[in-house]
Amino acid sequence: MFKEYDVIVVGAGHAGCEAAAAAANLGSSVLLITMNMETIAQMSCNPAMGGVAKGQIVREIDAMGGYSGIIADKTTIQFRMLNKSKGPAMWSPRTQNDRKRFAEEWRLTLESLPNVDFWQEMVSSLLIKNNTVVGVKTNLGVEIKGKSVVLTNGTFLNGIIHIGEKKMGGGRTGEKSATGLTEQLVELGFEAGRMKTGTPPRIDGRSLNYSLMEEQWGDEERGRFSYTNVALPTDQRCCWITYTNDKVHETLKEGFEKSPMFTGRIKGLGPRYCPSIEDKINRFAERERHQIFVEPEGWHTCEIYVNGFSTSLPEDVQYKALTQIPGFENAKMFRPGYAIEYDYFPPTQLSLTLETKLISNLFFAGQINGTTGYEEAASQGFIAGINAHQKVYDKHELIMKRSESYIGVLIDDLVTKGTEEPYRMFTSRAEHRLLLRQDNADIRLTPIAHDLGLVNDERLAIVKQKVKDSDDIVAFTKKQGIEMSEANVLMEELGTSPLTQNVKLFSVLTRPQVNISDIRKVSEPFNNLLNTFEIETVEQAEIKIKYEAYFEKEQEIVNKMQKMEDKAINPDFDYNTLVSLSKEAREKLLKIKPRTLGQASRISGVSPSDISVLMVHIAK
Amino acid sequence: MFKEYDVIVVGAGHAGCEAAAAAANLGSSVLLITMNMETIAQMSCNPAMGGVAKGQIVREIDAMGGYSGIIADKTTIQFRMLNKSKGPAMWSPRTQNDRKRFAEEWRLTLESLPNVDFWQEMVSSLLIKNNTVVGVKTNLGVEIKGKSVVLTNGTFLNGIIHIGEKKMGGGRTGEKSATGLTEQLVELGFEAGRMKTGTPPRIDGRSLNYSLMEEQWGDEERGRFSYTNVALPTDQRCCWITYTNDKVHETLKEGFEKSPMFTGRIKGLGPRYCPSIEDKINRFAERERHQIFVEPEGWHTCEIYVNGFSTSLPEDVQYKALTQIPGFENAKMFRPGYAIEYDYFPPTQLSLTLETKLISNLFFAGQINGTTGYEEAASQGFIAGINAHQKVYDKHELIMKRSESYIGVLIDDLVTKGTEEPYRMFTSRAEHRLLLRQDNADIRLTPIAHDLGLVNDERLAIVKQKVKDSDDIVAFTKKQGIEMSEANVLMEELGTSPLTQNVKLFSVLTRPQVNISDIRKVSEPFNNLLNTFEIETVEQAEIKIKYEAYFEKEQEIVNKMQKMEDKAINPDFDYNTLVSLSKEAREKLLKIKPRTLGQASRISGVSPSDISVLMVHIAK
Repeated sequence: MFKEYDVIVVGAGHAGCEAAAAAANLGSSVLLITMNMETIAQMSCNPAMGGVAKGQIVREIDAMGGYSGIIADKTTIQFRMLNKSKGPAMWSPRTQNDRKRFAEEWRLTLESLPNVDFWQEMVSSLLIKNNTVVGVKTNLGVEIKGKSVVLTNGTFLNGIIHIGEKKMGGGRTGEKSATGLTEQLVELGFEAGRMKTGTPPRIDGRSLNYSLMEEQWGDEERGRFSYTNVALPTDQRCCWITYTNDKVHETLKEGFEKSPMFTGRIKGLGPRYCPSIEDKINRFAERERHQIFVEPEGWHTCEIYVNGFSTSLPEDVQYKALTQIPGFENAKMFRPGYAIEYDYFPPTQLSLTLETKLISNLFFAGQINGTTGYEEAASQGFIAGINAHQKVYDKHELIMKRSESYIGVLIDDLVTKGTEEPYRMFTSRAEHRLLLRQDNADIRLTPIAHDLGLVNDERLAIVKQKVKDSDDIVAFTKKQGIEMSEANVLMEELGTSPLTQNVKLFSVLTRPQVNISDIRKVSEPFNNLLNTFEIETVEQAEIKIKYEAYFEKEQEIVNKMQKMEDKAINPDFDYNTLVSLSKEAREKLLKIKPRTLGQASRISGVSPSDISVLMVHIAK
Repeated sequence: MFKEYDVIVVGAGHAGCEAAAAAANLGSSVLLITMNMETIAQMSCNPAMGGVAKGQIVREIDAMGGYSGIIADKTTIQFRMLNKSKGPAMWSPRTQNDRKRFAEEWRLTLESLPNVDFWQEMVSSLLIKNNTVVGVKTNLGVEIKGKSVVLTNGTFLNGIIHIGEKKMGGGRTGEKSATGLTEQLVELGFEAGRMKTGTPPRIDGRSLNYSLMEEQWGDEERGRFSYTNVALPTDQRCCWITYTNDKVHETLKEGFEKSPMFTGRIKGLGPRYCPSIEDKINRFAERERHQIFVEPEGWHTCEIYVNGFSTSLPEDVQYKALTQIPGFENAKMFRPGYAIEYDYFPPTQLSLTLETKLISNLFFAGQINGTTGYEEAASQGFIAGINAHQKVYDKHELIMKRSESYIGVLIDDLVTKGTEEPYRMFTSRAEHRLLLRQDNADIRLTPIAHDLGLVNDERLAIVKQKVKDSDDIVAFTKKQGIEMSEANVLMEELGTSPLTQNVKLFSVLTRPQVNISDIRKVSEPFNNLLNTFEIETVEQAEIKIKYEAYFEKEQEIVNKMQKMEDKAINPDFDYNTLVSLSKEAREKLLKIKPRTLGQASRISGVSPSDISVLMVHIAK
């Protein structure tokens, strides 16, 4: 009934979709198996993509030929570049999306890939031979052969939904959970754990009083995730902001004794940085209010997502508390919020390619690895899909570096340090975040994708041109001068001290108050030059002018560290032979099997003196 | 958390959606409860609306202010008027629809009705007081008060999905079944039964060889379901026809020993007129081939619905047989076909308003009443929604007559005769089908809907104008003559005998070979008149000219029968007091509680002599 596939992807959420697409675009024959073809790429939680650090990840996926950015762009109902007032390393694109359109675009995208086949069913076990996965077996008993398998089961593995004291099986509200796989993996020797996440109630937007909330519009100058020229919707929709208050908090507390979180009925740990509202008022008792983002679910629907109000308290408590929020006095719920517990596999059981160490050709991506967030899932799926293909075709592994991408930071963190609570990306997790910006994801990563064959020559040429053009602009500013007298009117206008002599454009532009958009108004030659370039190129030049010095310093640090990162270690090295290592270091090194000295140095419990021992050994 | 609603509708399929909309438009406050707000108005089976007799029902719903026709029109990917070569009573509109668009349009339509609220959850029991329903209780334990409740549970009540020897709980593939309600209803004294239906495998259209199939395009002159001016998509998609053959049949037979149908694992009876492919080759062993309609699932998706190939044989048998169909040699399946068993309640437990006889203010609509088909479900939901509103607001009941609508035939058949297998509408079920045409549903029913307040004055005026205008056209043809010599060139062209004298247009138009479109070419005054009218009006006039005599005869029969239909009987009359009735008649009459002598006469087991007894009694 089925041919033997190169790659079988189990699950069709953000991770599964990117995995299937990446492997297929590299030339693998792919079977995407989902429990319900009507719910491919469902946004289970908020109808939004990107945000701080996450937006950078979407740009990185896009720069490498993934689809999350393109699909988010096509289905955007609002775009905002967050942190625009801060340095460019903090700029983070974020979109609100039409939930239904997003899912539909993903499905049509996958259908457009000739190498992707589909099958709707639950996978209940893996076919294993000699510690290598060779396919999957479904609930109907169908055996499907595959040279590699990517598991992206999300919250479905033994999923249990909690609302107050009630609990029920389910992978998402209204959908069945998946069973069988965890049990088999544990039998194979995998360690499994439980995690928890949650989602807020959905509200009837027709019942809200928006005049009591703050409007939040998208950026007038629309940005985008994708470096490709995908057409954006011309319109945007408004969101709103409102706040909880004392009354809301008091009401929520009434439900605490029935809370599955506080009564211990939920065993799994939840996402620290995306906590439920009851968690927030419990942990931050001093806070008088919490922000609530009121987000439309799409272009036309009246359904509203109450971002910031995730909760698993009893539905009547949710309701009562909601109606005490300004603007929500007459709120009608479509459904209550809930928490969901699900199985995950501590990601230290993976190598940096996202292949499991125990079973060859088996890859894990997304929430199954203990992460939270669409972007985190999508990026893992993307890398797992690539590596599954590379493995099957006997090509080189793709290991993303911490110094070149958030994706690298994410995977290295997971694999090297593990996680005991849902892992979410932050800029603070990236030590080289100055270099990992949303504006240069293409410069950083498109060449890598081009080498793999995921991105065509034309796209690479565009990136090279962008680098060259922005360099040309910078060079121009270093040659072209500006008349002191002419400039000083502008300097005063911009509130910066007057020039005391004629200088080059570059030197004026390094002032924080002065932007290219100002200077082009007073320098005709400069303006003429800029008119010949895309906005993104000009922006890139401006970032270089203003921050190049910082970037260079950061790059030096990277280069120094790189020596450690480049020192390869045989992952199967028997650390027991190195008696000078501490016992803890030996145990951890044997478990994590680091690929480089750099990775080894990040393992908790491996001390600098352990690293010295390793360095000495490697030097021999 | 909830106010008391006038009408609570449980289930949001075709029946539930129409019920909620109708009650809301009449002024009731409505709560629509569904297990999953993402799957409102899912087309569970084929992506199509209408067809023989069913198309007439959609027109009837539309004529009365329901939405099925409007939504089908908006989401049409192909329109065909079936049986156009037969008499106008057989003309049946049918559309292929974009499955996702259809569901989305319904949801947005419901959201646009201010009186409709939504709640996502499973209803697990009814709240009953003094044999009257007063609300529902959900799985979470939430009690919601409602003055009336409409149950439209479809295939979800204790749904079990069968594929070969495998069975699993589910209301649709990938969705949970609903539990609790049946058990409570049985405890309350309801009789419950099991029915079965099925659906074919879904196929990857990219894997088919269309050159081996016959193309089937939609009508060039597009018709529509709705009498309103809803905008139609401008384009249409092609469908295809192919056929099974001996090999296919032999392969399918290999699976018979594992068939849940033939091994007795499925207890419920399936739809006789929409049988599974294994049923067809079993029952019609002499047939060498069966037609297969290859239907796209939407505008852009490659998913294909294999109409005519419904099956619950093991998935490998389905697959093998499919690949022996011309054009399907390399077919890839998205998912196998399956059978589903579910609870229904024999509809003789209802009155003609669709209210249950046992529990006041409780209404049943759709598959729960033992019907099959979207249109059958939608029309019942529509009538149940109206009657729920009318009951709550103490207004008159709406009982549709057999002589004025297919909906009337449907409900009278269900309630009076019951059904032991999934009931599907056919033109043959309507004794007055000559009058129940798709072209005059507005003339028949819009006035009734206007009386109820479901249709505004403007819509009624349009219908009245259509009647007047078409009458004017007919009158014109009776006055306006045609020159014998001029006409005879045309008569020869059309293959009909030449005129022997100058005659009126009317007399030429009664010839079956001669259409208005022919005559307007040779009669300038006629053409000028027609140019001032809508196509539908001209068509109405033509139908009148050609068939009025038949219609009048039929109307006479209706009028005669009407005397029986008008003879009201007290539904609670104690038939035990009429000793001259046969024992069987007494039992059946007590069970069915007919409203009229006409209805009594259609009860199986009630003989003409029993009717005479009743007539004598009523006369007193």
